[in-house]
Amino acid sequence: MDYKLAVRDNHPEDTIIEIPGQAGITRIGKGYCTIIAGPCAVESREKYLEIAVQVKNMGAHILRGGAFKPRTSPYSFAGLGREGLKILEEAREITGLPVITELMDVRELDQILRYSDIIQIGSRNMQNYSLLREVGRVRKPVMIKRGLSATIEEWLLAAEYVLCEGNGEVILCERGIRTFEVMTRNTVDIAAVALLKDLSHLPVIVDPSHATGQRNLVGPVARAAIAAGADGLMIEVHQNPQEALSDGPQSLTPELFLDVLDHLKDLAALNHRKWGQAQ
Amino acid sequence: MDYKLAVRDNHPEDTIIEIPGQAGITRIGKGYCTIIAGPCAVESREKYLEIAVQVKNMGAHILRGGAFKPRTSPYSFAGLGREGLKILEEAREITGLPVITELMDVRELDQILRYSDIIQIGSRNMQNYSLLREVGRVRKPVMIKRGLSATIEEWLLAAEYVLCEGNGEVILCERGIRTFEVMTRNTVDIAAVALLKDLSHLPVIVDPSHATGQRNLVGPVARAAIAAGADGLMIEVHQNPQEALSDGPQSLTPELFLDVLDHLKDLAALNHRKWGQAQ
Amino acid sequence: MDYKLAVRDNHPEDTIIEIPGQAGITRIGKGYCTIIAGPCAVESREKYLEIAVQVKNMGAHILRGGAFKPRTSPYSFAGLGREGLKILEEAREITGLPVITELMDVRELDQILRYSDIIQIGSRNMQNYSLLREVGRVRKPVMIKRGLSATIEEWLLAAEYVLCEGNGEVILCERGIRTFEVMTRNTVDIAAVALLKDLSHLPVIVDPSHATGQRNLVGPVARAAIAAGADGLMIEVHQNPQEALSDGPQSLTPELFLDVLDHLKDLAALNHRKWGQAQ
Amino acid sequence: MDYKLAVRDNHPEDTIIEIPGQAGITRIGKGYCTIIAGPCAVESREKYLEIAVQVKNMGAHILRGGAFKPRTSPYSFAGLGREGLKILEEAREITGLPVITELMDVRELDQILRYSDIIQIGSRNMQNYSLLREVGRVRKPVMIKRGLSATIEEWLLAAEYVLCEGNGEVILCERGIRTFEVMTRNTVDIAAVALLKDLSHLPVIVDPSHATGQRNLVGPVARAAIAAGADGLMIEVHQNPQEALSDGPQSLTPELFLDVLDHLKDLAALNHRKWGQAQ
Repeated sequence: MDYKLAVRDNHPEDTIIEIPGQAGITRIGKGYCTIIAGPCAVESREKYLEIAVQVKNMGAHILRGGAFKPRTSPYSFAGLGREGLKILEEAREITGLPVITELMDVRELDQILRYSDIIQIGSRNMQNYSLLREVGRVRKPVMIKRGLSATIEEWLLAAEYVLCEGNGEVILCERGIRTFEVMTRNTVDIAAVALLKDLSHLPVIVDPSHATGQRNLVGPVARAAIAAGADGLMIEVHQNPQEALSDGPQSLTPELFLDVLDHLKDLAALNHRKWGQAQ
Repeated sequence: MDYKLAVRDNHPEDTIIEIPGQAGITRIGKGYCTIIAGPCAVESREKYLEIAVQVKNMGAHILRGGAFKPRTSPYSFAGLGREGLKILEEAREITGLPVITELMDVRELDQILRYSDIIQIGSRNMQNYSLLREVGRVRKPVMIKRGLSATIEEWLLAAEYVLCEGNGEVILCERGIRTFEVMTRNTVDIAAVALLKDLSHLPVIVDPSHATGQRNLVGPVARAAIAAGADGLMIEVHQNPQEALSDGPQSLTPELFLDVLDHLKDLAALNHRKWGQAQ
Repeated sequence: MDYKLAVRDNHPEDTIIEIPGQAGITRIGKGYCTIIAGPCAVESREKYLEIAVQVKNMGAHILRGGAFKPRTSPYSFAGLGREGLKILEEAREITGLPVITELMDVRELDQILRYSDIIQIGSRNMQNYSLLREVGRVRKPVMIKRGLSATIEEWLLAAEYVLCEGNGEVILCERGIRTFEVMTRNTVDIAAVALLKDLSHLPVIVDPSHATGQRNLVGPVARAAIAAGADGLMIEVHQNPQEALSDGPQSLTPELFLDVLDHLKDLAALNHRKWGQAQ
Repeated sequence: MDYKLAVRDNHPEDTIIEIPGQAGITRIGKGYCTIIAGPCAVESREKYLEIAVQVKNMGAHILRGGAFKPRTSPYSFAGLGREGLKILEEAREITGLPVITELMDVRELDQILRYSDIIQIGSRNMQNYSLLREVGRVRKPVMIKRGLSATIEEWLLAAEYVLCEGNGEVILCERGIRTFEVMTRNTVDIAAVALLKDLSHLPVIVDPSHATGQRNLVGPVARAAIAAGADGLMIEVHQNPQEALSDGPQSLTPELFLDVLDHLKDLAALNHRKWGQAQ
């Protein structure tokens, strides 16, 4: 294989990613259990700030929210763009939490760098090599979501594209793969999480929301992910999932999110995992 | 859908399966966490009895061991047949534990009924409807392994074939599905476990050995399964995996099995799960 | 690989299968282009005899019709059973054409042998090794449909099970594999046809009806199959597809079937292929 | 569905794409059978010009050759870049044939527009929506290769991204999808070709080289594609496949290419298809 930098051979120690912020340093990897939460897309200033404060108070460590949304159809809501980025910035100031948002286009890199603490590369761009090389040249953590039909090998080589350009802060995010099963949106590859923790030093996050597409499966799959060794979770939370502009059926209400977190904290403690954010 | 008996609509309560034995009643489902263990195939009397006693002492609740083995190639070792069944019977007497073994042919049903406490229907026969109907007419628990490319719907309808003939003691076993990923033997569908626990009243067991094909992934996937809500696990254990006649790379040594069990007991306790066998 | 008998290494010449009948010898393989046609299931004596005569007059070489039907749900129509076999026998007498029907259970082998000229092993039973071994011990051609998620290797090894028991008259039938694509019922693996014609001496038939699940795709895929080297086709034809008890959407009307055959004859001529039945 | 412009509802007539060049107008779609040929990558000026002249003399209508190559590993040969584009330009002048090459990055669009007659969007970028929108704003034909695990619906929506920006000259290229089968590189979805010709007015090209990954399967799959209704083929040809820097095992030698073309011409004539280039 062409892995050099993504695997443990020359880097036996777990990578830990540290994101300084107003509320302290947020950590991903190496024994921490880190929760990224928020709505799929930033839909309005008012709604976003409200949910941001809610998930922060419940225990989330990082805020998510899409400003540029990749959509299968050109006629779907594609995010608020720059306006969405500014709302993220405001949420970061109010909550003190770092934010993550998706980069879809090399020409938007400067904007994303200015407003986001972690750069997300979405599934559809996992093999967009121009994009990967560009984020390899900056000094900001990059989270690479697994492509819908990417093998573990291809995924690690996508990470390698970033690492070989000099950016060592790469996070892998399992978000379900495409299979023949139709009852769930995707099929979460739980063994891939365990395999990657063994083979690679990079942190691995699981997104049970996209992976399952069903609200009632988010909790059990989140627990399974931590039990299998994942370093954290990315969970969609929306005040009113029925009215969400995207991904409503898989979004948790704040109440359900709190319930999921409670279970996760016990599980994290059982596994001697530190909760992601320093006080 | 054509589910009637396999789902909660007319059967809201969890099904619990009780298997009486010399060492007490072994239970599967409804809050129990039950461990099935043993080698892939019964290879010899001496070796089988030795490992049976070992896994029993370590905490396993049910013994597994194939006497009739479905093999992709007609030239591979296909099990000891009737001789294997007799060895299973002896192991049951010595350990007091119930045994499970696979039925591949309707003509072997009487033999299997005599020697086995649970009838296993393998993945390749999940849609062998003659076989399903026949085991629906007997009074013995039946464990149906998910077909390699069976949807959850098809799997539940396989259970329905057994249930509609009058046998209500059906257990579902997730053992990984076939996908494009080649680093693991199959892809364990962890969300299917959570989905089934919600939709159906039947017990769900996970087989992390066949699902992953790799010894080092068995522990993490076993923990993920219990965290996701599975009612138990089926784990391959072999004294000397390198010399196993089948499935060596995924078999645990007794030492590794003990280690996996230790973690599982804590996890089961956290989830208020009873350990499968009454004293 | 464990292929010995299914591949060309020890059997470089194409296998040709000859089925004697009242209307002459029907041939499959080695340069012949052979058409199997008829409804999915035998639904009634009157309807079956009518369609049998129609497809014969249009140029079909072999009659198909299910008497024992494997159905995903236990509550679906599962065929007329023995009564269906007798109707097939009558159709054979009236048309002079050989018939093919599916064997699902080792206990029905004697019946099938009496009434059918070719034994069909369905997709769901492609790895039912007891069944494969039994049909390996008789003197009758066996057509093995590819399993829904069977690799080419597994499919050849299923053939090997029959061949190694002494029955050399095996036909392979590609009927589409299971993939993520949902617009077609299955995904016909056209390259597998070309690969098998290269690797194996056995005849390869394509079933464009099950492979696509859509009437309007049957013709183009049938032509593609012959162009890729297939030795024949298995096509579902029904007088009134809207009223078919199974597989209506993919069944051709007799008029459409005639149109498909016309195109195929030209294509077969271009490829120097003999039309399947001697006069 | 969100298709509006890609389907026949509002555009019943087949789209025909006309590319003017020194040797006349090259046409794709609406009854033409058009052959795109050349090596996977432009490897050197001398070798490229030689093979370009060869395939032109044998009957190819359009030259292919990658200057920017998407590679799974960051350490693989990624093309000659701008130098490769200049070699393509020279080949176009010498042969009079139009050329097609891949665009991977919005920032390279101007260069590609200058040197290439058709813009190729590769499989990995099929859902790179920024790229799709940009090529929708130019006046040049765009060929969109199907993503490795893209459904037909997603593929048509990728075309919709280009069409809705105003560029109506879109070609679809089936190049095999990812399945569990490992004997071929990908699984060519032949029914998708027939389905698209029915549903959409856009030309459909098949790439049997990438789809199969094996030289000996290119001819049969090429014939199957034309028989199923494809408007053309994209075939890799290399003087010395063993020394190719990428995709050697699937590249035809010029001699094999000539042989494949001979068969295709007869098949095209049988289907009343015009050969792609006007004299």
